[in-house]
Amino acid sequence: MASMAFCCVKSLAQATSRRGLSPNFKWLSRVTRQSPCSLPGTWTTGARFMSHGAAAGGRRKGVLVLSGAAAVTAAVAGLLANNWHFRQADMATLVPKAAEETRQEGDILSRCRGFMSPPVTDVAVLQARKDDMCTRMEMLIMETQADFCKALQEVDGGTFQVDRWERKEGGGGISCVMQDGEVFEKAGVNVSVVSGHLTEEAARQMRSRGKVLKGKDGKLPFCAMGVSSVIHPKNPHIPTVHFNYRYFEIEEEDGSKQWWFGGGTDLTPIYLDEDDAFHFHNTLKQACDKHHPRFYPDFKEWCDRYFYIRHRGETRGIGGIFFDDLDAPDQETAFSFVKSCAGTVVPCFLPIVHKHLRQPFSEQEKAWQQVRRGRYVEFNLVYDRGVKFGLATPGSRIESILMSLPLTARWEYMHEPDLGTPEANMLQVLRNPKDWV
Amino acid sequence: MASMAFCCVKSLAQATSRRGLSPNFKWLSRVTRQSPCSLPGTWTTGARFMSHGAAAGGRRKGVLVLSGAAAVTAAVAGLLANNWHFRQADMATLVPKAAEETRQEGDILSRCRGFMSPPVTDVAVLQARKDDMCTRMEMLIMETQADFCKALQEVDGGTFQVDRWERKEGGGGISCVMQDGEVFEKAGVNVSVVSGHLTEEAARQMRSRGKVLKGKDGKLPFCAMGVSSVIHPKNPHIPTVHFNYRYFEIEEEDGSKQWWFGGGTDLTPIYLDEDDAFHFHNTLKQACDKHHPRFYPDFKEWCDRYFYIRHRGETRGIGGIFFDDLDAPDQETAFSFVKSCAGTVVPCFLPIVHKHLRQPFSEQEKAWQQVRRGRYVEFNLVYDRGVKFGLATPGSRIESILMSLPLTARWEYMHEPDLGTPEANMLQVLRNPKDWV
Repeated sequence: MASMAFCCVKSLAQATSRRGLSPNFKWLSRVTRQSPCSLPGTWTTGARFMSHGAAAGGRRKGVLVLSGAAAVTAAVAGLLANNWHFRQADMATLVPKAAEETRQEGDILSRCRGFMSPPVTDVAVLQARKDDMCTRMEMLIMETQADFCKALQEVDGGTFQVDRWERKEGGGGISCVMQDGEVFEKAGVNVSVVSGHLTEEAARQMRSRGKVLKGKDGKLPFCAMGVSSVIHPKNPHIPTVHFNYRYFEIEEEDGSKQWWFGGGTDLTPIYLDEDDAFHFHNTLKQACDKHHPRFYPDFKEWCDRYFYIRHRGETRGIGGIFFDDLDAPDQETAFSFVKSCAGTVVPCFLPIVHKHLRQPFSEQEKAWQQVRRGRYVEFNLVYDRGVKFGLATPGSRIESILMSLPLTARWEYMHEPDLGTPEANMLQVLRNPKDWV
Repeated sequence: MASMAFCCVKSLAQATSRRGLSPNFKWLSRVTRQSPCSLPGTWTTGARFMSHGAAAGGRRKGVLVLSGAAAVTAAVAGLLANNWHFRQADMATLVPKAAEETRQEGDILSRCRGFMSPPVTDVAVLQARKDDMCTRMEMLIMETQADFCKALQEVDGGTFQVDRWERKEGGGGISCVMQDGEVFEKAGVNVSVVSGHLTEEAARQMRSRGKVLKGKDGKLPFCAMGVSSVIHPKNPHIPTVHFNYRYFEIEEEDGSKQWWFGGGTDLTPIYLDEDDAFHFHNTLKQACDKHHPRFYPDFKEWCDRYFYIRHRGETRGIGGIFFDDLDAPDQETAFSFVKSCAGTVVPCFLPIVHKHLRQPFSEQEKAWQQVRRGRYVEFNLVYDRGVKFGLATPGSRIESILMSLPLTARWEYMHEPDLGTPEANMLQVLRNPKDWV
């Protein structure tokens, strides 16, 4: 949730209508607080994920690797009709081909048509500087938002509320929230792209390694952007997922640019399912391994350290990966890694959703979910750097920062599950993080 | 909740059984995790509030001022049988005589018998130093806990779970929690009495004015104690109440003692009832006015400033009083003021509980309560100094710190009540604190 820090903006629900868009982009303003599906002819809808050109057929021998959320839904429908449980072997068939492998950085305007909303930056500006990292990253985060939202809409049947907001000092964001859906209690996917000037102190705080940066008269022009999401499903057998991918650029006194990437994806099950844990971590590991053999083990450990609720002595969930300050070996290679990670959010999570979609649950299981939701709130409000930074920044868009909180949560005094129960089993793993792959 | 900071201890549910109590005090150990009512013959039960010797009859001409929770219940029973609503004039008749006016600082042992649990400090030690401020304050906070718990038990019909805990480094506490009762969703009343050594830095942080204190080799012996409570009722027409009264003593290098009191009582209604607001503030004002004409206006304003959810631009509730660092004009006078305040917790709150006890409520009103509970959680986890200090202190008893959180809470994205509704009316007051008396 570190990128929630980007949400330092004022809410402007009808932002686009005031942006003075050129006639060519007037159509973009129509999306404000609308679902893309309500704009036929302008926005592609359900099938968009397929349009990236993935061919049916797997890259691993003997395993059918499907290409998108639609394909997942179709494949799962038969399997799950009257049987929520299926084995890991079945799960592998549900892993969509990671989006980044099939995605081309092609024509800006046509890519924008697939987004949940027009991008934060004017399309004309993006087209004019299409090779800049800021443009490429903004396109990536918008695409990640759209892919994920559409996959969730498809499984839920509901639609995301899309809110555009602008930041007085520069930039803005797009918050997509689906609340009280069929499958999801609360699903939030937020993009923000902000710019302005930082003090040297603020610039140092933004970097986890606290590097000293020298600004002109103590001020440093900066640009920060990211996509961030938290999904709280209703069924306690479907875990909560969170991801966040972000990019920073700061210009020093001498005109040189400092840049770095950060991000991660992590899972918070209510009940432990070891196959889910393996699938989730293994999907991330495969994406990491293509770039550096140390990425997965190092970022997995960083994730366990970061999502730690110190006062409870337990992690928030079973982790995933987390990294910050990634500025090596070069910008192109780092971006390529981030693209791989962003491309895994659908294949990490959706197969798990489908697997448990029809799994029945008891009142007691729901109550345990509510207690775990309480711990989620504790982590986010007490420890999360992004939330803390956002809440402390005047003019933040609080609703975008706090959309990560669950719809409902519970705090029971002295709650401790009985030994040997699935609840105690879950706690055991949170108190002693494991290696899953 | 600032005194939650005292809870820097390790949980020891069966603490007393390991304390090596002298034979005379063996009876004290039986209370661990028991309600006082389950120990007939040892602890006084329902009628204890009366035993302070209050005579029936009012101190204000023409107004029947009752003497305790039992009397309140009896008086209200008839009034409320089939009619939840009654006027402010009726409310005045329900104000019990403030406990401090009728309380004698008499025999230690006999006073202890009325507590929810044996005091934290050995009774023999308290008897041996009965005129010390530490003893007098510990007796006051134990008595306040007992008075309040018994009044709540009486109206709810449930019993408090009583947990004693000890702190490795010295002292301990008594947490009384009633959860999912008839009337109260979660009611916590916590006493803590801790001692040990502080670093100079920690000592400075404990004082809101950050006075520099000089310790021997940088260490300062300290003693801190307090009673703290948060009550979340089920009915959305009954407000949440919080109070906290605390005392600190720090010994400097030269042997001189620094001491100060802090505390306050504040109300968080879900729906505004102006008569309740008047009654609550007026009861506090009367207690304050007996000691200094500036106390109520100054501490009322301090309360509004302290319980402010900055990122929402609203106060947590409609306030009350809040003060810290009170070390003037002299210890006796300051203690006398704190005694007056502690004596008002029952008369501030119980008449409001009784007034709304049978008031019907809709699903929508319950949902609004849940949203407001979410804001309560936000304040406590993000801003409350005591909670932050407690969570950051290794070895804290987390369950006692976080018992202030409601049983259930809700976060709705972009929740904003319609103009002119009772919910909008409540928000209006939270955004613009008012004078109530």
